[in-house]
Amino acid sequence: MTSSTPNPSLVLNKIDDITFETYDAPEIVEPTDVIVEIKKTGICGSDIHYYAHGKIGPFVLTKPMVLGHESSGIVSKVGPAVTTVKVGDRVAIEPGVPSRLSKEYKSGKYNLCPHMCFAATPNSTEGEPNPPGTLCKYYKSPEDFLVKLPDHVSLELGAMVEPLSVGVHACKLGSVKFGDKVAVFGAGPVGLLTAATATAMGAAKVIIVDIFDNKLQMAKDIGAATHIFNSRTGGDYKDLIAAFDGVQPNVVLECTGAEPCIAMGVLAAAPGGRFVQVGNAGSSVVFPITEFATKELTLFGSFRYDNGDYETAVGIFDKNYENGKDKAPIDFEKLITHRFKFEDAITAYDTVRAGNGAVKCLIDGPL
Amino acid sequence: MTSSTPNPSLVLNKIDDITFETYDAPEIVEPTDVIVEIKKTGICGSDIHYYAHGKIGPFVLTKPMVLGHESSGIVSKVGPAVTTVKVGDRVAIEPGVPSRLSKEYKSGKYNLCPHMCFAATPNSTEGEPNPPGTLCKYYKSPEDFLVKLPDHVSLELGAMVEPLSVGVHACKLGSVKFGDKVAVFGAGPVGLLTAATATAMGAAKVIIVDIFDNKLQMAKDIGAATHIFNSRTGGDYKDLIAAFDGVQPNVVLECTGAEPCIAMGVLAAAPGGRFVQVGNAGSSVVFPITEFATKELTLFGSFRYDNGDYETAVGIFDKNYENGKDKAPIDFEKLITHRFKFEDAITAYDTVRAGNGAVKCLIDGPL
Amino acid sequence: MTSSTPNPSLVLNKIDDITFETYDAPEIVEPTDVIVEIKKTGICGSDIHYYAHGKIGPFVLTKPMVLGHESSGIVSKVGPAVTTVKVGDRVAIEPGVPSRLSKEYKSGKYNLCPHMCFAATPNSTEGEPNPPGTLCKYYKSPEDFLVKLPDHVSLELGAMVEPLSVGVHACKLGSVKFGDKVAVFGAGPVGLLTAATATAMGAAKVIIVDIFDNKLQMAKDIGAATHIFNSRTGGDYKDLIAAFDGVQPNVVLECTGAEPCIAMGVLAAAPGGRFVQVGNAGSSVVFPITEFATKELTLFGSFRYDNGDYETAVGIFDKNYENGKDKAPIDFEKLITHRFKFEDAITAYDTVRAGNGAVKCLIDGPL
Amino acid sequence: MTSSTPNPSLVLNKIDDITFETYDAPEIVEPTDVIVEIKKTGICGSDIHYYAHGKIGPFVLTKPMVLGHESSGIVSKVGPAVTTVKVGDRVAIEPGVPSRLSKEYKSGKYNLCPHMCFAATPNSTEGEPNPPGTLCKYYKSPEDFLVKLPDHVSLELGAMVEPLSVGVHACKLGSVKFGDKVAVFGAGPVGLLTAATATAMGAAKVIIVDIFDNKLQMAKDIGAATHIFNSRTGGDYKDLIAAFDGVQPNVVLECTGAEPCIAMGVLAAAPGGRFVQVGNAGSSVVFPITEFATKELTLFGSFRYDNGDYETAVGIFDKNYENGKDKAPIDFEKLITHRFKFEDAITAYDTVRAGNGAVKCLIDGPL
Repeated sequence: MTSSTPNPSLVLNKIDDITFETYDAPEIVEPTDVIVEIKKTGICGSDIHYYAHGKIGPFVLTKPMVLGHESSGIVSKVGPAVTTVKVGDRVAIEPGVPSRLSKEYKSGKYNLCPHMCFAATPNSTEGEPNPPGTLCKYYKSPEDFLVKLPDHVSLELGAMVEPLSVGVHACKLGSVKFGDKVAVFGAGPVGLLTAATATAMGAAKVIIVDIFDNKLQMAKDIGAATHIFNSRTGGDYKDLIAAFDGVQPNVVLECTGAEPCIAMGVLAAAPGGRFVQVGNAGSSVVFPITEFATKELTLFGSFRYDNGDYETAVGIFDKNYENGKDKAPIDFEKLITHRFKFEDAITAYDTVRAGNGAVKCLIDGPL
Repeated sequence: MTSSTPNPSLVLNKIDDITFETYDAPEIVEPTDVIVEIKKTGICGSDIHYYAHGKIGPFVLTKPMVLGHESSGIVSKVGPAVTTVKVGDRVAIEPGVPSRLSKEYKSGKYNLCPHMCFAATPNSTEGEPNPPGTLCKYYKSPEDFLVKLPDHVSLELGAMVEPLSVGVHACKLGSVKFGDKVAVFGAGPVGLLTAATATAMGAAKVIIVDIFDNKLQMAKDIGAATHIFNSRTGGDYKDLIAAFDGVQPNVVLECTGAEPCIAMGVLAAAPGGRFVQVGNAGSSVVFPITEFATKELTLFGSFRYDNGDYETAVGIFDKNYENGKDKAPIDFEKLITHRFKFEDAITAYDTVRAGNGAVKCLIDGPL
Repeated sequence: MTSSTPNPSLVLNKIDDITFETYDAPEIVEPTDVIVEIKKTGICGSDIHYYAHGKIGPFVLTKPMVLGHESSGIVSKVGPAVTTVKVGDRVAIEPGVPSRLSKEYKSGKYNLCPHMCFAATPNSTEGEPNPPGTLCKYYKSPEDFLVKLPDHVSLELGAMVEPLSVGVHACKLGSVKFGDKVAVFGAGPVGLLTAATATAMGAAKVIIVDIFDNKLQMAKDIGAATHIFNSRTGGDYKDLIAAFDGVQPNVVLECTGAEPCIAMGVLAAAPGGRFVQVGNAGSSVVFPITEFATKELTLFGSFRYDNGDYETAVGIFDKNYENGKDKAPIDFEKLITHRFKFEDAITAYDTVRAGNGAVKCLIDGPL
Repeated sequence: MTSSTPNPSLVLNKIDDITFETYDAPEIVEPTDVIVEIKKTGICGSDIHYYAHGKIGPFVLTKPMVLGHESSGIVSKVGPAVTTVKVGDRVAIEPGVPSRLSKEYKSGKYNLCPHMCFAATPNSTEGEPNPPGTLCKYYKSPEDFLVKLPDHVSLELGAMVEPLSVGVHACKLGSVKFGDKVAVFGAGPVGLLTAATATAMGAAKVIIVDIFDNKLQMAKDIGAATHIFNSRTGGDYKDLIAAFDGVQPNVVLECTGAEPCIAMGVLAAAPGGRFVQVGNAGSSVVFPITEFATKELTLFGSFRYDNGDYETAVGIFDKNYENGKDKAPIDFEKLITHRFKFEDAITAYDTVRAGNGAVKCLIDGPL
């Protein structure tokens, strides 16, 4: 206790300014606290957005912030009341902890908790620090926001549980189940993982829509979708339906937030269909409300993930790989296009920021 | 069969051209057919729209059409297999009959049936007649699209079952139930009846929003709403919340289709809330999709009504009046602002078309 | 802090042995703790069961236990982080606090939490004290397990929020809503309050079933039910349906746990109906599973109450009394058949234990 | 019309008395009628029950009845309004047609229609014939009770759509979905197909329970279950949980109707779990209602199948075989243990009646 443990961390100070810093490692305070040694961290589009723009909507960076919220690691210390994990366990970290007394938490929809403390998301209240990110050596979490990784799930996949949970949440809201005909708009990391989730949950067929052929090809290559459609070169919503064997999707999972995609999704959807809005472009859109209402579609707003989604996401990886990598129906590994050492983390950020085909980029934890 | 029964009818020939015509009365063909002698018919905004514009969206009037789809009457003849009604029964008539073999009918959502035959809605297929309207003396319906009126429910109220069912359907989609805090946009007939439905279903409080104070006052006078808000003079969504005792509505029932109302509803709604789009302005709107998704709202498109809604609507009238008119919580009778004889039906149409405070205008059946 | 506040309490030491004891009043420990000065406490059948038998199922009294779990009171002290109540507020107390980290709590179903700490329910773990009951002067609760009483709701009604919540929970599981035809078995306090809940939630009609005419009469007198049926003298399930205007109930709320009632409920229920098992007789029953399955009924096991039920129960009282006591649809006050001072609490217990027409007996808090 | 087509049929005259008869083939009457030439028919336990006992519950054989209700065939004639199938199409036949006007049909739950006309189920109304069975050459069906078989689905599998639909219906009622931990009681044809359905719908793991090791082995061999448990030799419900990797099933699908299985299922189920009663032993059972209610389980009675289940069942076969038989996750073909020519149909019935390891026995249509 006299001398604290150093905690090397990657810090975004302000726009275009990332540095390595060393803080004191967190200590067990609550009896259910757990210290995790971070092993793998993915870079998310939101990280890049803060790096390039310093803010996302109402969240404005006004003081240095440790980056990272897509991480897995190994339990290194546990509080005296911890029962569900033990030192040495491999875990995925759910990076947002809500107020335990909030109505939202109590009802399972804790993603809506107004007191949410979410890793690497700026806290604009003056005098209060930013919630710590996970791009460091030691990260503290309550035990119930850790999910143990089963044997079939690597630490690399563990770092992808976070974005996969976004897809799981969307599919849960849209009640995706066996036999559904699903259209997914957007073939970036979230779109790909959302399509993969729909496939894992039993969709009869999945069409993925994007404006880049290479991204569409990736969706087919990894087995996330059965059909693809280029919405820039392929035509309008009728062509989408034609490309989907003449079937109107009964579920649309919109992962772009782009106005033309939203409109195409509404027009293509089958009467009575479900439409989940996952993507967020940060602005209003022109929306075909008459077609929407006349077909009695249902639109679900989807924000992050809530109770049980992390467990389901881990379950998707587990089930996918239970017969071995070569028999896995979906090749999630292929999504990991870049890997970096912790000391090269700034290069990693610059690589993703530059685009150029990066899908998911993982950074090792500090040694 | 030798001499047919005359069937006086009110016919819209084309824009601005309504005449009285006499056709042959319908005959029992299917063993479950029922002939109803029409007693009361309400005028709907859509009737006026055809009268003034000759079309609504894809439905274009190209040949004469009997008007009317909000009717009650008395059973005058029944087919040999009819078991649920008998001659002399007072009934409300559900005016749209779908294909019995369609997937939509089978699943209870027959309002979405593409083969729907709906009274006084033009059939644009050449060579095929328009579905008959109900503004005539004798109207034919299959027995299962008739609902018997209980003792507490008059034939006048019976003619309002149709628009009330629109409110019932919206509240069903939005799962309105005891304790909900409901905002209703629009205080025309549908808005008023939708607010009344929410009240009958146990909403803790209901705020109704319109730009006309006299319409808002009507909502309070009949007991359909506990709170009112003038969206032209009352301010923005924060003022709406303030007028609602500081409460964000957890259910929004949008009965206008107007862009500013839709936007205000999304901004005012509580996180996790339900939003039902009832109104249809026939066009796209600018929609605050980011606020919608971040709060995880759910939007339900609502179109007419489907399985069980008519029965529920009759149940609302029945329950409301079971202790007598003077003790009824909601004064539905007050909505009937005008009454006309059948021979004055054209005047009735012109009266509603002129506006001037008409809420619901009823026309007697031909003697 | 040097001298503690005395906390007079009513203590069940063992079977047939209740005494008054004075302990130290609880202190604020967690920043969200609240101290409530108890004002009204109801006696529950379970209290009497412990008094007479020393146990209920697996819960065995092995050490003295403060009685009481149906209480209302006035906030007398609040922790530094408390925001939702303040000193002087009138509150109903939800007496069971689950583990904040349990899966069950997180999913809203905290009544199933295996770590539940429930007032006046023996803790059989050796060395650990029983959870404190509410029959004392000062009771400690986290702020989020207190519900403020609105102006229309008295402290006496506040003490009935607990048993009313049992009815609310049952009706929630059974999705009781406008238009339902509900049969309630049992006209004891829970049955009466469950019937009243179904009525408040919009049931079209409610039949209550018991073997005592005076209890059935109470149900009609307070306006909780529209129909009554004496299952000892009235015949079998066909007679029940006949007494219900020939209608098969589409919802059954079984509040007795008695085998003949359960069977009669299954036989009477409409095909596709919902059946909620609230009553608990502590044993297995012969169950007509074939009739159950052939009619595709659904049976919901109901245990206490969970997220939101207390708020809904307070809402039922609030709505019922918003136009004044004389206009209240349900006369909940009439259920309070006996009132005692705290110093007469043992007499209160003996009175309820003796039966003799006591419905709900309330005990004042210590002065 | 002058000369009718002969329709060779297999007829159960009374107990132990099956003969071949030739009737007139059915004719198109309704414009949506379809005549199917029967190709494959499975034998169901109920057929055997009528053969051996002459009745099942209220259904008593009082006049000769054509057997068979699990059939596939090829469309040989279509009515003038038929649009969804054409001559030559391979179809599975849904053998129960409800009243088109019944409330139950309208709401999608047509399995509960009291006017259901179900193939090979005795009609006890005097003077009315039994509904025709499918064990004949030509069978008439309305077009919407036929489901086209996709290329991957053989006529043999087509004949198994009927029992598979029973499993689909059970899984639908129990909302079986990705990640569920499912226990299936009974490893006869329905239990096996129900387990296979749960697997196809994404269950994380499935344990099947029976008292015969060879049946359990079949479940593993075909890939329908991940775990097996012999309830005669394996111990009690705690041993079942132990055999399921220590996991309490959150879904129980009970396909035996046997009292000890039902009790074991209730005791083993996880708190909050879903329990579907598929099996029907025709009698009441001792039921652990206290454990059931305290854990807040939900019990769904399951009877045959309803709207959409046939389509889903065909979808399960289609998805399973889309990559070819050798890559199919579930080996449904292996369930077909016996095949007979039509002229050997009586031998087929005697074989199944004798037991001896027959799982599913198929009979060809008459040539």
